[in-house]
Amino acid sequence: MSFSKDNLKGFVLALISSGFIGASFIIKKKGLRRAAAASGVRAGVGGYSYLLEPLWWIGMITMIVGEVANFVAYAFAPAVLVTPLGALSIIVSAVLAQFILHEKLHQLGMMGCVMCIVGSIIIVIHAPQEQPISSVQEIWSMATQPSFLLYVGSVIILVFILVFCFAPHCGHTNVLVFTGICSLMGSLSVMSVKALGTSLKLTFEGKNQLIYPETWLFMFVVATCVITQMNYLNKASMTFTQALDTFNTAIVSPIYYVMFTSLTILASVIMFKDWEDQSAGDIVSEMCAFIVVLSGTILLHWTKDFERSSSFRGLKICSIDRRSRNVTAEH
Amino acid sequence: MSFSKDNLKGFVLALISSGFIGASFIIKKKGLRRAAAASGVRAGVGGYSYLLEPLWWIGMITMIVGEVANFVAYAFAPAVLVTPLGALSIIVSAVLAQFILHEKLHQLGMMGCVMCIVGSIIIVIHAPQEQPISSVQEIWSMATQPSFLLYVGSVIILVFILVFCFAPHCGHTNVLVFTGICSLMGSLSVMSVKALGTSLKLTFEGKNQLIYPETWLFMFVVATCVITQMNYLNKASMTFTQALDTFNTAIVSPIYYVMFTSLTILASVIMFKDWEDQSAGDIVSEMCAFIVVLSGTILLHWTKDFERSSSFRGLKICSIDRRSRNVTAEH
Repeated sequence: MSFSKDNLKGFVLALISSGFIGASFIIKKKGLRRAAAASGVRAGVGGYSYLLEPLWWIGMITMIVGEVANFVAYAFAPAVLVTPLGALSIIVSAVLAQFILHEKLHQLGMMGCVMCIVGSIIIVIHAPQEQPISSVQEIWSMATQPSFLLYVGSVIILVFILVFCFAPHCGHTNVLVFTGICSLMGSLSVMSVKALGTSLKLTFEGKNQLIYPETWLFMFVVATCVITQMNYLNKASMTFTQALDTFNTAIVSPIYYVMFTSLTILASVIMFKDWEDQSAGDIVSEMCAFIVVLSGTILLHWTKDFERSSSFRGLKICSIDRRSRNVTAEH
Repeated sequence: MSFSKDNLKGFVLALISSGFIGASFIIKKKGLRRAAAASGVRAGVGGYSYLLEPLWWIGMITMIVGEVANFVAYAFAPAVLVTPLGALSIIVSAVLAQFILHEKLHQLGMMGCVMCIVGSIIIVIHAPQEQPISSVQEIWSMATQPSFLLYVGSVIILVFILVFCFAPHCGHTNVLVFTGICSLMGSLSVMSVKALGTSLKLTFEGKNQLIYPETWLFMFVVATCVITQMNYLNKASMTFTQALDTFNTAIVSPIYYVMFTSLTILASVIMFKDWEDQSAGDIVSEMCAFIVVLSGTILLHWTKDFERSSSFRGLKICSIDRRSRNVTAEH
């Protein structure tokens, strides 16, 4: 375990970020609930009353602080380390949901939390060392290598297909469309955020990178990607908010996590060659640990499903009971 | 990942062993069912008709082959590597149960299998190197170091308490009593099996160890431990067989696995100082991976519980249905 000082900084920042982002979900949800209770109109149906609710804004600020911490984390540690730690925000959400929203956390959900933590520990232990970068041109040459350009090209084509062919038809019924767009753009966001973050870090260290056009180009790419991503993430969470009665907090998060993390790791491995200096054992351990974290998030997600089925039970009789039975048998 | 040739041999033997042992459970269970169907008396109630059933004997032989492979595996690789791989036998059981006994494997159970496999891979990658041993006296001095003698003493006292205080009262109602005795004795069995196996290996390599009394003493300890363990494992599985109607194949296995593996790793770490030359990262990865494998076995176990509740559902109405509902809600 050769854990560099920079990796440690990145790790701590990623933890802080997860804490803030996890908390922001709950604060925003509480805000949305209050707003809905006050106005009787739900956000997804077109109501904007939540904009008058201070809790919602506190949630937004918490999220922005978390995102900034995340942004800075990418400047210090490799994406293979920072991105999977995002799963910890789900745990923070789940734990806070229990205490603040009084959503019960099942034994299965607790096991999901344990899986996420244990998997994250293994990922952190086996994270690759960041190769020292001395100028923005160096990153530029990484970003323009043929293999990475191929990745960027495929992502853009896929996003276009999703936006123009799938989003109009089934964007509001299939959660995979919006989360897919977000994840694909997200992997590009992270790469450009990492490039920009590293340039800014170098600038603060005294090696001014703002004189190079590449820095400004990365800034433009960050803005484009983040705006697209935010827009569709918002649509996804609106679709999700609309379904608040039947679905639960953690329905979008695990799917998004799986796709976003996988694509970001793929992008980072192609662009920064994270795995080049690592032993086969390290890489295999990382991938296994990633599967563990994935399973943890899926467990948390399933737990929420169980909860849904048991709340049906509390309310209804015969016919619904048969339905909830099927739900239970499915899992 | 510096995987020595001996570790590889031990690993392959442990895999073969898990395959045979996993299959043996299913073959024996099929044998017991056939015997019960033929005679109308169940094994746990005192019937011995299963002794006339060839399938039961084939199961026994399969198990013995598996145990021998396991025994030889311990001579080559450290217990910290061989013991946790025992979990793979649960997977073999679960998969064969689906095909031969037509017990359905749930999605949750499949996730349990994935966890067991992924955790085992990480354990294998981080397994310590075996320190070369050149004579049985060397093992003897390890076995008589104060810290290990303290461990042996505590185990013997605990086993006596369980056998004389708990077994008569609640041995047949609480599965922890018999599995506890088996696990405690099992950790000593493994250590003595490892000592004996290593002496025999040295003997086959030309360095005759049979001339030393220590070898024979280890043989005596192996016999004592294995007989005690077999006796109580048999009692545990009888108690278990008795409950075949309500419980399922995998009810004893995960509990036994958790206790047995933990105690064996503890014993091995004390006696062979497996962790002395390992980095903190390796040890933490191993422990995390062990938690992953444990969670996997627990998931498989829970799955079986779900199945039980759904089989109640297929048969009964109202009152039982409420009972099965509670079972589902609990998990």
